[in-house]
Amino acid sequence: MADRTVKPRLPRGLIDRAAGDVAATDRMLAAIRESYELYGFEAVETPFIEYTDALGKFLPDQDRPNEGVFSFQDDDEQWLSLRYDLTAPLARYVAENFDRLPKPYRSYRCGWVFRNEKPGPGRFRQFMQFDADTVGSASPAADAEICMMAADTLERLGVKRGDYVIKVNNRKVLDGVMEAIGLGGEANAGRRLTVLRAIDKLDRLGPDGVRALLGPGRKDESGDFTKGAGLDENQVAAMVSFLHVSRNLGQIAVVRRFEPDSSRRLVAAALEELAKLVKNSPIGQDGVNELRAIAELVSECSYDDGRIAIDPSVVRGLEYYTGPVFEAELTFEVTGEDGRPVRFGSVGGGGRYDGLVGRFRGESVPATGFSIGVSRLFAALKAVKSPIVEGAAARGPVVVLVLDRDQLPAYQRLVSTLRAAKINAEMYLGEAGMNAQLKYADRRGSVCAVIQGSNEREKGEVAIKDLVAGADLAKNAKTLERDAYLALKERAQVNVAESLLVETVRAILARH
Amino acid sequence: MADRTVKPRLPRGLIDRAAGDVAATDRMLAAIRESYELYGFEAVETPFIEYTDALGKFLPDQDRPNEGVFSFQDDDEQWLSLRYDLTAPLARYVAENFDRLPKPYRSYRCGWVFRNEKPGPGRFRQFMQFDADTVGSASPAADAEICMMAADTLERLGVKRGDYVIKVNNRKVLDGVMEAIGLGGEANAGRRLTVLRAIDKLDRLGPDGVRALLGPGRKDESGDFTKGAGLDENQVAAMVSFLHVSRNLGQIAVVRRFEPDSSRRLVAAALEELAKLVKNSPIGQDGVNELRAIAELVSECSYDDGRIAIDPSVVRGLEYYTGPVFEAELTFEVTGEDGRPVRFGSVGGGGRYDGLVGRFRGESVPATGFSIGVSRLFAALKAVKSPIVEGAAARGPVVVLVLDRDQLPAYQRLVSTLRAAKINAEMYLGEAGMNAQLKYADRRGSVCAVIQGSNEREKGEVAIKDLVAGADLAKNAKTLERDAYLALKERAQVNVAESLLVETVRAILARH
Repeated sequence: MADRTVKPRLPRGLIDRAAGDVAATDRMLAAIRESYELYGFEAVETPFIEYTDALGKFLPDQDRPNEGVFSFQDDDEQWLSLRYDLTAPLARYVAENFDRLPKPYRSYRCGWVFRNEKPGPGRFRQFMQFDADTVGSASPAADAEICMMAADTLERLGVKRGDYVIKVNNRKVLDGVMEAIGLGGEANAGRRLTVLRAIDKLDRLGPDGVRALLGPGRKDESGDFTKGAGLDENQVAAMVSFLHVSRNLGQIAVVRRFEPDSSRRLVAAALEELAKLVKNSPIGQDGVNELRAIAELVSECSYDDGRIAIDPSVVRGLEYYTGPVFEAELTFEVTGEDGRPVRFGSVGGGGRYDGLVGRFRGESVPATGFSIGVSRLFAALKAVKSPIVEGAAARGPVVVLVLDRDQLPAYQRLVSTLRAAKINAEMYLGEAGMNAQLKYADRRGSVCAVIQGSNEREKGEVAIKDLVAGADLAKNAKTLERDAYLALKERAQVNVAESLLVETVRAILARH
Repeated sequence: MADRTVKPRLPRGLIDRAAGDVAATDRMLAAIRESYELYGFEAVETPFIEYTDALGKFLPDQDRPNEGVFSFQDDDEQWLSLRYDLTAPLARYVAENFDRLPKPYRSYRCGWVFRNEKPGPGRFRQFMQFDADTVGSASPAADAEICMMAADTLERLGVKRGDYVIKVNNRKVLDGVMEAIGLGGEANAGRRLTVLRAIDKLDRLGPDGVRALLGPGRKDESGDFTKGAGLDENQVAAMVSFLHVSRNLGQIAVVRRFEPDSSRRLVAAALEELAKLVKNSPIGQDGVNELRAIAELVSECSYDDGRIAIDPSVVRGLEYYTGPVFEAELTFEVTGEDGRPVRFGSVGGGGRYDGLVGRFRGESVPATGFSIGVSRLFAALKAVKSPIVEGAAARGPVVVLVLDRDQLPAYQRLVSTLRAAKINAEMYLGEAGMNAQLKYADRRGSVCAVIQGSNEREKGEVAIKDLVAGADLAKNAKTLERDAYLALKERAQVNVAESLLVETVRAILARH
């Protein structure tokens, strides 16, 4: 034994998962898988490690791995990284196997991804994602379908209709509005950013504040002046109209559940307004047309009943999205650990990323996908007590006690008999006495213990304890009526011939 | 699009897995899980990343990560490593949660592990292991049970009895023989190594060659002299006796299946011989007693019928084993790619490692475990066509063709109808014409395609193609009798009212 013992510690931002969580997560993943297969998606899995450049990350310099990504060199001095999502590896896979894959290529995958970031509450360095992607289709039907699949999947997992919404936006619309008022092109990138920042302050400053920031600038209460984007009156008017329509669209969700038909008309009218704003911008027109096509398909299948909503507030951080973006939000509140209401918010999202596979091929390859944050959704499902993750706590195995250490083979035979009858069972393998062995069985969640001391052995019998009845008995011994007490006592332990072991154990397992 | 495109390439020693392999592996893992739960083991999972020192690896210097292990620093400059097996993380987990775990603690886990080594045929940098371990029991019953579980698991997976053997050895026996002839202790480490090297040449040099190498030395045919271990005559005699008994034990397996009773006597006699050889060595006596206890338990449950065999040829490379060691070997041959017979050999192994948890606690904690090499065993199961991994190739989804692009919502409704009936289905999302769409459906392995052109639409009908019958028709058009041809043709495509879509598709799916 070394002098210095090593301190056992789980690295920060990582978790161990015990039996209950492993089983519940497996049930959840199986349900997602079924849902995705119903939509014609098929499994594919890539490894955890990719070449750093294939992930689209800059090659790390020798001193410091790339920000946010775990990187290392292999025995050939090549830079490798742990995948930080499942989309970049899929793009590599599709590009590498392009010719032999059916196209459009619909696939799904579930797996752990890694982030080299400061961990925090609910922020892990290793977490699970479950993605579905359609590569090789530019059709808005591919986007619409993925949104419908996301909705179906949440419901299959036990999230009730009305407790979630899949929000859809399109990046091209805002880009188009800016292009239409003459802010397109590389030269205006800086001004577009100022405009985006101004828009982002709508909630805080109200329409007048934003109007000022879009124009010459704004003086706040303390007298500080923030320089504006310098748009002229017509440009400001166009941006304000855009914000107005966006706000309207976002609020349609509220009336949707009560008056589906009028909400459909409202959506169509709002999209018409947007179309007018971008009529001078080809990219903006594309964006509105895509949103309209998605809205139409969604409405055809009645998913516009609150399950899927056009909502221009959805932005999604990743720069690789090129068109429609989606966000799956849980809308119910639960009571947090501090007693205050908490919203789970986003449990998944995605969008169209036409450039990601193209990086490898020198041509744009249309692709769209959706990613579920499994750990986050798992926590949410627990909060709503979804049967998928709740289930009954798994019962421990039947424990065969070991009273006479020189009789191990005989105890082993009892265990083998149970296992041959497909009953989960084990022989106690520690050093403790009978009471500690029974405590061990309790701790394993066992329903039943099998005991054979010398008395029983001589008679060819075994004593079988019903541990659940035994616990009841111990708890209620003083309050039970005499008859009930005797009945319970009779149930709590029976002595039977060895040949009746399996059938007696089965009967006890069946009653709990 | 960037000028320079990135080349998509899977890093060496890693693999992508397509739908069929993912599904077959899942079935295999489910069967192993059931087998382990039958034995009372429960799931626990640890993350892929551990602190490097917790894995028992030396801290890598700044320039070069640790040999064989992928290591990197996190944002706090702490050294982390990808796990290279599942045992070291389990030891960390048990040590960290020691007080709240039931003891003995039986657990299983399945997961990917990583090696930073030169990849080669069948040697991967990421591969899957499935481990079961009992921590906190020093009893040979824990070892015996794990061997029986390994045997049961292989059979459950479709490996036939007689096609595998679980071999058991104990490191303490050979150590004891050497201790008994005065080669114990640190001072004799070098000589013990020379003795081990001599023994290892038994197959190549025969008993006389080994005898010479144990004594003064050996001159080979070319006249070269290899210096021996310098044992005296009694010492050499003891070693040769050990080799003799070992050889006998190893060969008992051959007669075992024909005469179980006499093989039991042979095993007992051989163990008696070994006991005599180590009577002056406490560690050797322990070793023989443990082997005897294991043999007795195994024989009590009749696993000594060839399923489990005491075999002193089992060494196992890892230095952390402290007593019994196990090896699961497949004994059948298959025809390799070059047409020559190949043995799969070892598909798993394990043993007792009483020091590994103790590293963290400053006291020895008894532990024993078994690890299946999942990828290797998977290849073997495919070779023996085990139903677990073979299964029918999964059928692709029903494909709804898109003939009129302006009718997308109508096609979408057909797909939704199928999905609502729990039939895996998709709408074709590409740009191609009808023939290419039918080819796509073939490529997906679809049984059935749904077609609605303007003719069908006007009549409120759909055409449903049975793609399997269609393929038969195309292949056999010229050779079929007229009646058979017409019958097949009738099956290959039917037109039905839209309201009969689900039931017609169901009928076609049911017949294939």
